Amino acid sequence: MDAVNQALATLSLKPKVVEHVPADSPAAWRDALATTAAPEPFQLLKTLVYKPKTAKTATTVPVVVLAPEAIQPSSSAIGKKLNLKDLRLASDDLLQDFFSADKDSLSPFALNAANFGKVVTVVDSSIATSSSFFGLHALSSKSTAFLTGKEVYAYLKSLESDETKLQELDLTELAAAPAAPAKSVPKEKEDGRIEGAVKIAVGYKKEVDFPNWYTNVLIKSDMLDYYSVSGCYILKPWSFSIWETIQRWFDDQIKELGVQNSYFPMFISAKVLEREKDHIEGFSPEVAWVTRAGQSELEEHIAIRPTSETSMYPYYSKWIKSHRDLPLKLNQWNSVVRWEFKNPQPFLRTREFLWQEGHTAFLTKQEADVEVRQILDLYRQVYEDLLAVPVIPGVKSEKEKFAGGDYTTTVEGFIATTGRGIQAATSHHLGQNFSRPEMFNIAVEDPNDPENQKKIHVYQNSWGLSTRAIGVMVMVHGDNQGLVLPPRVASIQVVIIPCGITAKSSDETRATINNACDELAKTLKKSGIRAKADLRDLYTPGYKFNDWEQKGVPLRLEIGPKDLEKKQSLGVRRDTGAKAPVELENIGATVSELLATIQKEMYTKARDTFHDRLKVVTEWKNLVPTLDDKCVAVLPWCEAEACEDDIKDRSANEKADEAQDERAPSAGAKSLAIPFDQSRWPAIEPGKTKCPACGKDAKRWTMFGRSY
Amino acid sequence: MDAVNQALATLSLKPKVVEHVPADSPAAWRDALATTAAPEPFQLLKTLVYKPKTAKTATTVPVVVLAPEAIQPSSSAIGKKLNLKDLRLASDDLLQDFFSADKDSLSPFALNAANFGKVVTVVDSSIATSSSFFGLHALSSKSTAFLTGKEVYAYLKSLESDETKLQELDLTELAAAPAAPAKSVPKEKEDGRIEGAVKIAVGYKKEVDFPNWYTNVLIKSDMLDYYSVSGCYILKPWSFSIWETIQRWFDDQIKELGVQNSYFPMFISAKVLEREKDHIEGFSPEVAWVTRAGQSELEEHIAIRPTSETSMYPYYSKWIKSHRDLPLKLNQWNSVVRWEFKNPQPFLRTREFLWQEGHTAFLTKQEADVEVRQILDLYRQVYEDLLAVPVIPGVKSEKEKFAGGDYTTTVEGFIATTGRGIQAATSHHLGQNFSRPEMFNIAVEDPNDPENQKKIHVYQNSWGLSTRAIGVMVMVHGDNQGLVLPPRVASIQVVIIPCGITAKSSDETRATINNACDELAKTLKKSGIRAKADLRDLYTPGYKFNDWEQKGVPLRLEIGPKDLEKKQSLGVRRDTGAKAPVELENIGATVSELLATIQKEMYTKARDTFHDRLKVVTEWKNLVPTLDDKCVAVLPWCEAEACEDDIKDRSANEKADEAQDERAPSAGAKSLAIPFDQSRWPAIEPGKTKCPACGKDAKRWTMFGRSY
Repeated sequence: MDAVNQALATLSLKPKVVEHVPADSPAAWRDALATTAAPEPFQLLKTLVYKPKTAKTATTVPVVVLAPEAIQPSSSAIGKKLNLKDLRLASDDLLQDFFSADKDSLSPFALNAANFGKVVTVVDSSIATSSSFFGLHALSSKSTAFLTGKEVYAYLKSLESDETKLQELDLTELAAAPAAPAKSVPKEKEDGRIEGAVKIAVGYKKEVDFPNWYTNVLIKSDMLDYYSVSGCYILKPWSFSIWETIQRWFDDQIKELGVQNSYFPMFISAKVLEREKDHIEGFSPEVAWVTRAGQSELEEHIAIRPTSETSMYPYYSKWIKSHRDLPLKLNQWNSVVRWEFKNPQPFLRTREFLWQEGHTAFLTKQEADVEVRQILDLYRQVYEDLLAVPVIPGVKSEKEKFAGGDYTTTVEGFIATTGRGIQAATSHHLGQNFSRPEMFNIAVEDPNDPENQKKIHVYQNSWGLSTRAIGVMVMVHGDNQGLVLPPRVASIQVVIIPCGITAKSSDETRATINNACDELAKTLKKSGIRAKADLRDLYTPGYKFNDWEQKGVPLRLEIGPKDLEKKQSLGVRRDTGAKAPVELENIGATVSELLATIQKEMYTKARDTFHDRLKVVTEWKNLVPTLDDKCVAVLPWCEAEACEDDIKDRSANEKADEAQDERAPSAGAKSLAIPFDQSRWPAIEPGKTKCPACGKDAKRWTMFGRSY
Repeated sequence: MDAVNQALATLSLKPKVVEHVPADSPAAWRDALATTAAPEPFQLLKTLVYKPKTAKTATTVPVVVLAPEAIQPSSSAIGKKLNLKDLRLASDDLLQDFFSADKDSLSPFALNAANFGKVVTVVDSSIATSSSFFGLHALSSKSTAFLTGKEVYAYLKSLESDETKLQELDLTELAAAPAAPAKSVPKEKEDGRIEGAVKIAVGYKKEVDFPNWYTNVLIKSDMLDYYSVSGCYILKPWSFSIWETIQRWFDDQIKELGVQNSYFPMFISAKVLEREKDHIEGFSPEVAWVTRAGQSELEEHIAIRPTSETSMYPYYSKWIKSHRDLPLKLNQWNSVVRWEFKNPQPFLRTREFLWQEGHTAFLTKQEADVEVRQILDLYRQVYEDLLAVPVIPGVKSEKEKFAGGDYTTTVEGFIATTGRGIQAATSHHLGQNFSRPEMFNIAVEDPNDPENQKKIHVYQNSWGLSTRAIGVMVMVHGDNQGLVLPPRVASIQVVIIPCGITAKSSDETRATINNACDELAKTLKKSGIRAKADLRDLYTPGYKFNDWEQKGVPLRLEIGPKDLEKKQSLGVRRDTGAKAPVELENIGATVSELLATIQKEMYTKARDTFHDRLKVVTEWKNLVPTLDDKCVAVLPWCEAEACEDDIKDRSANEKADEAQDERAPSAGAKSLAIPFDQSRWPAIEPGKTKCPACGKDAKRWTMFGRSY
């Protein structure tokens, strides 16, 4: 509200401000205002932000369009008028970056002296002279301020500088002029935004505007908020509790394997960090450096860990003096920092992220090899059993492996909507690359040859799983109603909502229904089910349905007077929308079973989708069309690094237009994994089966795809 | 070993290096070498490091003295010769800082071209010409290299530069000369170091050299290691597991109170951080700043959070829009950074530390007040019930409260050995200081007066508990054998050690005993006891006793052939050393009970000590003597801030010589807490009871003391 008050202070205005239920569409906004003390009559003020197409290196200058709600501005006409190419509705990321607001709280109040010069502001000419009231979001989806058109106009004019002037356009006239672009696109395709429908809560369609759908699901489900440092995000309890579930499960498992938790400092001195050249080469462009403490410049600059190999291994060298000190198996749950300059994406690519990193050392390669796969299988279980996300375990190509390691195993996930692969978690065998004498020199005397003082340099693994897992889960299961949570990780598995209470219902009926909901929640909790009764008054059942659907709660139980009579409740599955009565008798067992079914079916559905999209490609010409069909290509591959480079280049050049997914880091195909289970495909015949990219002998079936 | 190899490479030497059990005294070192292929005869080379007394602002130049083991160098004579004042054995901190080694691994190999110029190196003149072998720690307490005296000398000479030369002294002659200082001190008092006794593992006496005792206990118990970034430490599993126990218990408790976990980024932009002036004033000299990422200078410098108020509250303002959004109760388990320039001390004062920080917001002050005390009581339970450390709950004086808050409640601990108080954990009521309009403006409409749109700014609390708790526990319970762990937080509660096996024992006897130990461990685990059988061969029972005593395991069970015959085991309590047979029958229950008794008695003993040291002081003249007696003074105090300043100044000036505890941050008395329970002392009579410091009317009994 600060910004709003500041804005008003510049004009000494005291407009009426009303609070209401949050509104995420114009229709919902109007509805929300209906029960408030809003001045009558009023129009809503639309605030639309467009991003023109610009070269990657150029600064983005968004276009802010302000219009009365009845006017449908034509983005192409505005673009033509302003000589800007391809105006597209801006992403929430951009709104946050420029205005620190989301689309549901944006209004002229988000414009101020600091950002006015960085945008182009267009106002419909009808506003300038209007004395009637306009409703403007008071920088919140839950409150609205009312100003006259003249007041809005005066405020905008007050922001003008010599360099930047307000653009006044007659948007109605402009929209009526013949459409310019030859390459016309259906409106829905253009922005993917879902107008006016309260029921469809997310505001963007998953299949049309995936990036905006994704960030909207995260915000609307209350998983995440944007943060004032770019590329960093706040993990709210709704997502953090999922991480806690993963942590507790995985932590118990690795402790069974004899892994112990520890904590190494987040700082690494420049000298130490730069010790492993191959390893650090991969990270150095992204390392955040502390150079100052208080008012003092530090003598030596200190890195914030991008990963902890170089932080930990000097001490492994110190601690491991005898084969009796082996194996050493340490893990830590921490955050690491990689200052990415690419477009950040919540959970998937963030400047700070949470993970666990395990670092183990063994006397023999065999032991290390076994552990690499044990851990990878735990990662598979985290994805498949907890998050209901199918993954394919395999090994990375030489090009894609962890820099400084011997080989990298991976569980690869798949985002069906974009047809892209995603690295879900990795378990690396480092061999002796870090333990060798000229590196960290981690060695013991050979216990089988103590006389000759022969040294064995230890064999090491490192393995990590990050909060990326949560993003993958959202992308795989979410739908146009919002998040869909698998029961095992949902902090609320069942929400119970009182229904059938109307204004005419007696207090007694109301109390009976509410008590029944409360009792049911208690009963379910006794069966170990995470249940909650939503007894908030002032909210309608419909509002609550929508609220909990957005948040992805796996099962909703509705209880009304008639349900009580029949000793039942109406159950609604979040994943399928299927409705069926559930007997109150023995309901703990019934619901437990139902949750298990939901968990299993969510997994099965996603797995079938993934497997259906694995397409064998044995001729080059089929590769790009396969990718364009949002599939993963499985090639009998030669495994040569040069061939991989070539595949990436050639597939990028041949690619179809994919501009709609701006945040895709690369459109060329890279190898995702060489699956351990090769039996899914016909046996490769040595000397006969050829690599479709280079024609050389194929070695193993390898998944290639576009990826995150 | 890197450093050793580098050192040898400069002289192209290939000395014999042998590995052995770790040695922490010259006697143990000799013993350890007895069974190795060491060349005969040999002498051990002593490497002693002294710190001269220097002005606080001057750079410390340590003195390294190298002598054959038979020579007892006189530090005062060396000091006189070199014109340096008050040579004292250096702390482990200093050894780490200068040589990256501890006293048990230090040797001439720790000297190199980089640090030679920063120290004064003294070598006994007998070494220069000796052709006989000297044993030198190969920078590890577990391995020894053998060089001739000439080779050692040649190595040292190779490090000389134009500025820095090797000092050759006849240390025998020097020591024989009449001792210089008039103010002679008993040898033990001088350095507190315990020579030659393997049984006394820690190497320093707690009551004589507390700072070195403390760091040694931490290292020897395997809780902690020093780290290459000064002021940061590695938490090894032996200490981290204690933190995990605290975390799990406290986390369960706060979740019962409706607190949810979340994660906010570690970064705070300069602009945001500097928003709350009072608050940030306390932290700004210690804030670590990120100014560079990869090769790019950042436009805006970014702080690493010293605490998260300013990181979180802008979002509280955004999220809290209605009284229905209250209370908001979030917590995070994270690390924070305060770049202290004072002497760091593991767990107590470190540049990065782990903690939890809870941040809550309420509609009314009453609700907030209640929570402040609920949380404080949980902190009391963490200390008293888990760590067996007594604390006194109370409120901080205005001077000592959290900057920016309304009032601070605290649980205060006490370190009897130094007589100092220590702030154990704090729970703050922030009032509306952060929520007020000109700050973060966190407000809702008054639900009792919706018509007038009256705003209520929320009432906030913040509360934190850090890994400092582990340090306090070590200081309170540890003894001259090492760490003493309370059973509830010990990751191993019972260690079972096979005894009575000699070289003559048959393999069968050996197997029988080992199996019995193994079975016993399984039996105990079934009773929920964290038990471990130590079946390592090559180690004697005596070595194992010592090892687990150092690590503080609460109960040792010994099993030998005779015990088995009698169907019993010998139990030895770590806290008291008491020995008693324990019947094997029904041992799970017996041991559970015994552990509960140990837990209780450890607490009771520490509590009685603390309470015995609380001394009522009603006359000024008794204050400093009370502090010098290592007690806490309880004053009927006026609570005026000026009076507190005065007490601090006057008590510091009158203080007795306390030079032995170099790391004491302040020797003046400050207020520790105003205890909630005032009934322990006679009622203060309004207008009659006077403050002994200023003579004004006393308000409440207040604890004053020296403190950490």
